Amino acid sequence: MLPEIKIIGIEGIPEVKIGSDIASLIANSIKKQGIKILNNDIIVVTHKIVSKAEGRIVDLKKIKPSDFALKISKRRKKDPRMVEVILREAKRIVRMDRGMIIAETRHGFVCANAGVDKSNVKGEDMVSLLPINPDRSAQLIKDGIKRKLNVDVAVIISDTFGRPWREGQTNVAIGVAGLEPILDYRGKKDNHGYTLKATAIAVADELASAAELVMGKLKKIPIAIIRGYKYNEGKGSIKSLIRPRLKDLFS
Amino acid sequence: MLPEIKIIGIEGIPEVKIGSDIASLIANSIKKQGIKILNNDIIVVTHKIVSKAEGRIVDLKKIKPSDFALKISKRRKKDPRMVEVILREAKRIVRMDRGMIIAETRHGFVCANAGVDKSNVKGEDMVSLLPINPDRSAQLIKDGIKRKLNVDVAVIISDTFGRPWREGQTNVAIGVAGLEPILDYRGKKDNHGYTLKATAIAVADELASAAELVMGKLKKIPIAIIRGYKYNEGKGSIKSLIRPRLKDLFS
Repeated sequence: MLPEIKIIGIEGIPEVKIGSDIASLIANSIKKQGIKILNNDIIVVTHKIVSKAEGRIVDLKKIKPSDFALKISKRRKKDPRMVEVILREAKRIVRMDRGMIIAETRHGFVCANAGVDKSNVKGEDMVSLLPINPDRSAQLIKDGIKRKLNVDVAVIISDTFGRPWREGQTNVAIGVAGLEPILDYRGKKDNHGYTLKATAIAVADELASAAELVMGKLKKIPIAIIRGYKYNEGKGSIKSLIRPRLKDLFS
Repeated sequence: MLPEIKIIGIEGIPEVKIGSDIASLIANSIKKQGIKILNNDIIVVTHKIVSKAEGRIVDLKKIKPSDFALKISKRRKKDPRMVEVILREAKRIVRMDRGMIIAETRHGFVCANAGVDKSNVKGEDMVSLLPINPDRSAQLIKDGIKRKLNVDVAVIISDTFGRPWREGQTNVAIGVAGLEPILDYRGKKDNHGYTLKATAIAVADELASAAELVMGKLKKIPIAIIRGYKYNEGKGSIKSLIRPRLKDLFS
């Protein structure tokens, strides 16, 4: 039996509106596409459509920037209303330099603009925020798929993050349901008998990255099925992917 | 036509020795496994076997630590010989704290222990170093596969890196041949007409992460084929994934 994983993009998901039921949209689209979701598939959902369904969209026209937002936006040639929304979403500013704002979100993610993003949102001056509780968003989709299709899947909510030292962004997990996001090898012996001391793979991030390869940014494929990866089931939370600030060398 | 990507692990690669020809090992293994490599497949190779083939293995028994290595290893309860090798491989120490050494390698990668690693190397006290020129290593494998199997592929050499703020490691690309490591969307319009300003996806890193999912750390699968991903061909170099230090907020 070949060790083989498949990543399948789900096409034909309509523009998501506030209140849309993502599990239903998935069920309808795969039917049209003539594919099935199977037990132990992993469904990766880009957070953008989750944010839209949950109403986490802000109209910048309605935002009045604070004095602080006005001041720092002037220096950085940023839209002061955008800066205001970023500040509201941020728990802490990690770096503010060279036109960039790297901030920690309410969830503990460290990313550009505290996750506030203008791309792939309908309407001028509309921006998306991260879901309030992406683990819960993932669980709702998992439960909805169980109800509609009677299969047990894992769900990952993904976003696109930059990182220090390396150019380009990659997709990472910001919410999970039904799988342990980390595969911990510490204490296990490698093939030469050496006991691994630090190896713990962030498989949820690798799965999110793998899914991005079929999603792209312009192809209207916000959802992918990953089949054939034997994940550890369980009540995993995205929290286990967030390093406590005191343990981090770059906080 | 479904947007679909397959990741296939190559099994049965024997223990790689200095001088081993990796393209030949791949050709032999896929034959036994009954699979073919096709034009435009991406071959992801874990750097460990490349380092072994290129003789980038060090016997710590033969290393005499410097006074500096002795001093810093004492404070950190690390093997002073290991620290000595790390210092030799490092161009710059980025952080040295909490038992960790985060260093910049000759290539410009910022990672733990300057890429020096004890796992999956045969023999007590043996450690592996990163290949001297991973782009060249990738090109040699690409050329070898062309010669042996008459197919044009892209090759990615991967390693497992940690990152700030997030627990767990993911696989990233440290060398490429035949593909552009970044897919740049800047200046392109999204589906709502908004011009993307910062989006450039590090697809080589996402491909390396995707491959890790079939490789694992204990399964003796050091190589994976990724099929169905339409990469941008070209004379890409890993250099385009390395952010210049002056542009980085965390250097």
